[in-house]
Amino acid sequence: MKSNIVNNFLGKVLIGIALLFIFPIIVAVANGEPIMPFMVPLCISLMIGLVLNLYEFKQSDNLYAKDGLKIVAVSWVILSIIGAFPMYLNRDASFIDAIVETVSGFTTTGISVFKDVESLNSSILFWRSFTNFVGGMGVLALVMVIIPLSKNDKSMHVLKAEMPGPSVSKLVPSMKKTLIYLYGIYIGLTFVEFILLLFGGNNAFNSMLLSFATASTGGFSPFNDSCESLNIFSKYVISVFMILFGVNFNIYFLILMKDIKSALKSEELRWYIAIAVIAIVVVFGNTLAIIGNVEKAMVDSVFQVSSFITSTGFGVGNINIYSAGLKVLAFVLMAVCACAGSTCGGMKLSRVIISLKSVRRDLIKLIHPNSVETIKFEGKKISDDTINTTNTFVILFILLIIISLFIVGLDKFDLETTFNAVMTTFTNNGLFFGDISFTEFTTLSKITMCIGMLCGRLEIFPFVTLLAEKKK
Amino acid sequence: MKSNIVNNFLGKVLIGIALLFIFPIIVAVANGEPIMPFMVPLCISLMIGLVLNLYEFKQSDNLYAKDGLKIVAVSWVILSIIGAFPMYLNRDASFIDAIVETVSGFTTTGISVFKDVESLNSSILFWRSFTNFVGGMGVLALVMVIIPLSKNDKSMHVLKAEMPGPSVSKLVPSMKKTLIYLYGIYIGLTFVEFILLLFGGNNAFNSMLLSFATASTGGFSPFNDSCESLNIFSKYVISVFMILFGVNFNIYFLILMKDIKSALKSEELRWYIAIAVIAIVVVFGNTLAIIGNVEKAMVDSVFQVSSFITSTGFGVGNINIYSAGLKVLAFVLMAVCACAGSTCGGMKLSRVIISLKSVRRDLIKLIHPNSVETIKFEGKKISDDTINTTNTFVILFILLIIISLFIVGLDKFDLETTFNAVMTTFTNNGLFFGDISFTEFTTLSKITMCIGMLCGRLEIFPFVTLLAEKKK
Repeated sequence: MKSNIVNNFLGKVLIGIALLFIFPIIVAVANGEPIMPFMVPLCISLMIGLVLNLYEFKQSDNLYAKDGLKIVAVSWVILSIIGAFPMYLNRDASFIDAIVETVSGFTTTGISVFKDVESLNSSILFWRSFTNFVGGMGVLALVMVIIPLSKNDKSMHVLKAEMPGPSVSKLVPSMKKTLIYLYGIYIGLTFVEFILLLFGGNNAFNSMLLSFATASTGGFSPFNDSCESLNIFSKYVISVFMILFGVNFNIYFLILMKDIKSALKSEELRWYIAIAVIAIVVVFGNTLAIIGNVEKAMVDSVFQVSSFITSTGFGVGNINIYSAGLKVLAFVLMAVCACAGSTCGGMKLSRVIISLKSVRRDLIKLIHPNSVETIKFEGKKISDDTINTTNTFVILFILLIIISLFIVGLDKFDLETTFNAVMTTFTNNGLFFGDISFTEFTTLSKITMCIGMLCGRLEIFPFVTLLAEKKK
Repeated sequence: MKSNIVNNFLGKVLIGIALLFIFPIIVAVANGEPIMPFMVPLCISLMIGLVLNLYEFKQSDNLYAKDGLKIVAVSWVILSIIGAFPMYLNRDASFIDAIVETVSGFTTTGISVFKDVESLNSSILFWRSFTNFVGGMGVLALVMVIIPLSKNDKSMHVLKAEMPGPSVSKLVPSMKKTLIYLYGIYIGLTFVEFILLLFGGNNAFNSMLLSFATASTGGFSPFNDSCESLNIFSKYVISVFMILFGVNFNIYFLILMKDIKSALKSEELRWYIAIAVIAIVVVFGNTLAIIGNVEKAMVDSVFQVSSFITSTGFGVGNINIYSAGLKVLAFVLMAVCACAGSTCGGMKLSRVIISLKSVRRDLIKLIHPNSVETIKFEGKKISDDTINTTNTFVILFILLIIISLFIVGLDKFDLETTFNAVMTTFTNNGLFFGDISFTEFTTLSKITMCIGMLCGRLEIFPFVTLLAEKKK
């Protein structure tokens, strides 16, 4: 029975989740706020975790690809439910709305059911942004750093299933060391942003929450107007860091290893920068034509493009002035998103590039039936299997969006709002045109969007395989 | 030089196009209307055609796949321009609007630049519907039946490029005989519909035009309100024939050969019927809830679903009452459309089925890495090449829609209108929510939509390869 190792793993994950609640408890104590909303989920997950941890497995047992997918999918569902307890127990939201907020947090989507976040307790505000921060790099990855499963590296499949992007490679021979490096880069960059925001005149608490939400490209803000009321310096700091967190973390590793040449050679990075620059120019031109103020148009367009290309979902200015063409641009950037191996959502640039290259190859083959062309990406030959999986991903991505559109389309909203709601959740983006609140959707739509956010964050395969498993 | 055989072929196509104008001239003479608008394009295409026909080629010359694609793409551009002359010369529309109408006609899209078609001359009305009828089966196919190119079958590639669907197979060993069978089925079914519409109390002229537009799934109507004012019998007749023309013509051939067993076994046919029935039930439920009249709700939903699943684009009732969910359904049916080898637009059901099966296979492979599963469609194993081409088609289809959205999005319309306009043209559907006229778009958008209609009708590859050729 392989379920023993799976259960044991899930137990460790639950213990890890329990530990997460220590942080908001500290914030609550410091602010004299109730700690019960955090103690209850802490105890529940700790108890279940300890029980599951009793399952024993042999050192010879191995985790297979499908076990990895299963563990990740189940863990994230548990996470979504347990993580919703604080907001529900604190009577900030109904249970389903609390789940929407939590899923939005952990999946780094950034849509919110709260119209007035400024009225929330500090500990709850912290918890929201902390879900962003934890979800960005992956909850299970964190657990694997803190709690070792066994001496052998059995957990690569779990990591593969949780980490964004078509391929996860070990930076160094040991996977645990790889994870420590990745987390080091993540926390390090977050800390630099925190210092810069402090320097920009924001208080420590807000600087921390904004840095959490930037690093994870999550987008939860402690302010009702997202980032509109920040000063220009802070807006540019956040813009730059949003872009930085959209870069494949391998690049930072290469830079740390002083291999800057290889880092700059990255094909995906070049595309990413090029697309961001073009999008900024287009949005700037349009925004300037409408609002007429160069300085404001510049900061708004840099911020907005950085926000939607990295799936952060922070907002400044009024995106409702966008023309249909700009909205199309926003939705396309939303769907494509930034680099694989970053904290972003969407399909990821490298997948889109590989998919487009395969289309190009097939077209050439159509004109010259005897031509044999191999597809290269980042200087390496891409196997037919990778191309197939990539194209499957793209088609599955579109298919699941269509299914979600049917369900959310049952609500009373118009087509654009429906489309926007589905796209923003599925791509973990958080950008939303229009003024409706996510509380206004029916429970069925909310559940659909939660599944959409989870599918988007875990890149579809874990969830779809879980459903396929259940069927058998 | 292979260009000789290509030019010779194009010459024959132009002569064929010239001959098409004889029909509206007869109608014009019969109604005492001016014949000049038709004589001018007739003479121009005849002259150019005769000149190009002077190019000689050796019997040993062969047409390759890319020649076929090129001939088809060039022919359709010529067709769009020459076909626009009558409406322009008759001062019914500006030249660009006349081109939009002609492209909409030949590609069987069915969007119209005319708000008041009833004020048009009978000969012009006839010409519009005749472009539908000719475009439905393929202009080049018709030319190949009438004017033999050479003794050898050199023109399979042309047929392949022009005929809808992922694969064209010869029904009988000779391609010319195959074409005659196909045209026989096409004209035969059209004639039956014509008789039934006459029987339903419509006059001969209107019955003919409506039959032309049904057979080709074109959707041009001689009435300002499309089909709303027809009696219920006529509406059901048209509904049934729309569905019939969405079936792969091979099925009719099998039925003619009395192999009804094989015909009913068709996987695509079963999916087609199932989807149509489900869609009718859903639309009926929704329509009934709004208008409250069972008889009217029934005929409206049967008609509307038949119209948008087959990309005909005829309209009855008020589709603007549709909820967001129903609009999503309409757009999905629009994109997928009916069977390959029919006169429909969109991606075609068989492509979507093959694509979904490949997604399923790849998911199974993800769970069970060592599994080897072959994909079967219509009882036959599908090669990896076909799967690749199919997935490439699907991705290219979506990609071109996105590019069109950017361009049409520059206009002043909202996102839904923009999306609707692009989708309806690209899928050759003709269904349009909202009340704006296609004359209101800018010339750039009109050109984009014309290219979209042609790409949709010729299933992308000919046009994309033409552009790729030009680049070299």
